[in-house]
Amino acid sequence: MYGPGQPLDITRYFIIASDTVGSGKSSKPSDGLRMRFPKFIIEDIVRAQHTLLTEGLGINHLLAVMGVSFGGRQTWQWSVQYPEFMSGVVPIVSSPFPNAGRRGMTDFLGIEPIIQDPAWKNGDYDQQPRGLQLALMFYWMFLDGAGHLWEEAPTREQSFQYLPEVAKGWGRNLDANDWIYLMRVNDGFDAYSQLDKVKARVLVINMAGDEQVPVELGHMDKALKKLGDKAEYLLVNEFSDYGHFAAGKTVNIYGPKLGEFLKRLATAEERG
Amino acid sequence: MYGPGQPLDITRYFIIASDTVGSGKSSKPSDGLRMRFPKFIIEDIVRAQHTLLTEGLGINHLLAVMGVSFGGRQTWQWSVQYPEFMSGVVPIVSSPFPNAGRRGMTDFLGIEPIIQDPAWKNGDYDQQPRGLQLALMFYWMFLDGAGHLWEEAPTREQSFQYLPEVAKGWGRNLDANDWIYLMRVNDGFDAYSQLDKVKARVLVINMAGDEQVPVELGHMDKALKKLGDKAEYLLVNEFSDYGHFAAGKTVNIYGPKLGEFLKRLATAEERG
Repeated sequence: MYGPGQPLDITRYFIIASDTVGSGKSSKPSDGLRMRFPKFIIEDIVRAQHTLLTEGLGINHLLAVMGVSFGGRQTWQWSVQYPEFMSGVVPIVSSPFPNAGRRGMTDFLGIEPIIQDPAWKNGDYDQQPRGLQLALMFYWMFLDGAGHLWEEAPTREQSFQYLPEVAKGWGRNLDANDWIYLMRVNDGFDAYSQLDKVKARVLVINMAGDEQVPVELGHMDKALKKLGDKAEYLLVNEFSDYGHFAAGKTVNIYGPKLGEFLKRLATAEERG
Repeated sequence: MYGPGQPLDITRYFIIASDTVGSGKSSKPSDGLRMRFPKFIIEDIVRAQHTLLTEGLGINHLLAVMGVSFGGRQTWQWSVQYPEFMSGVVPIVSSPFPNAGRRGMTDFLGIEPIIQDPAWKNGDYDQQPRGLQLALMFYWMFLDGAGHLWEEAPTREQSFQYLPEVAKGWGRNLDANDWIYLMRVNDGFDAYSQLDKVKARVLVINMAGDEQVPVELGHMDKALKKLGDKAEYLLVNEFSDYGHFAAGKTVNIYGPKLGEFLKRLATAEERG
């Protein structure tokens, strides 16, 4: 992906990747403030990234903003919050619509088992509450696809062992309060209703079997209609049994389209 | 459905419907034994139904066995456990395969929030543990479809209110231990590996958007291949945004096929 001649060729492009507020090495509830950490939403994350670029790195224009999943949602937010800042945006396995319907309920169930756990103690726990594992197990079910999960656990016994193992691995470096903030960061997100602000060229890449961004909702048709000839759409049908995770299995399939999109943006910028 | 000239015309057919062991007015953990209630699996339920028919009602042959969802699974079990007992079987929104993969994980997550709840007290609670509500909320997500859930809760706020309301209504007449037994009743179920025993004619009716019996697993193709010319298959594409619940919305669509199937069975029986 990053080698010479590849889509995100680092001999050709400067790539900036930041940990978002609330995760990685950025400030987050588990640094100490716990549930007293200020509430932040996607708009704040994108504003922080913009500040990092303009005030921290002295950059006032990007060739493109791109991101996968939650990063894809940030990408949609960039397209409406700072429409002049970049020539293109590439949201991958993501939707500009609010997290409503089943997607919103997934966020709800990502929080509820934690806050219902008496061991959570309103965020002032001594060790990670068990409800975090439950929340992660539940969330996982909408990330992977039915086909791949059948392959992973083709017997009932295996299916009963699978999620606890997943949660154990995933939960090792996770903090329950950080996770709650991550679920709540989607509050108020709605890039769809603001798509008329978009100036950048848009390449949307989604996966056919993705339960997080279900094709059957028809949302992408609506978004593309609003974006008109600014937008291109690639729906990847391969590895659809991997659900949301298909994005990680099909880089070689959507990579060329992504590389070509960036090249076109660069050529257009060079021409002024 | 039951009126004169309709598929299950009660002026033409005797219809026997029993509460299964563990639910309704049949014996169940909540009668008093709680988690000391004997373990039962689908094979036991079908055996009890068989005993009811032969010893209770003096019936030694049925025109057809049919059922929806869990009833459909019992129907598959009938087809391999008492293959000579009926001329036809009609499993609706159901699979002869074990509850493995994501389906098995749904059963796992249907139990786990309850037994992790300290208020469950190994089944000896004074009032229903809160974990039951959580389990029902998890389970619901695989019954309804993404499309219908979006219609029900088109904003994030509504999506956060939806599941607690569902669980409140659903949980009103449910007992946590009964529910645990219901999830565990699927232990060992595997009609698929025994399909060579089937003697009855089979009409399988499934729904295109059903997350409980996902078309994309290709299981029905395998089952139909084993059943050969004994089987017919109707995949209902209408109301696919309702998921598993499409079965309740499309009776008028699959009803005629069901009625015609029963008539053919009756005609064949009359001819001997």
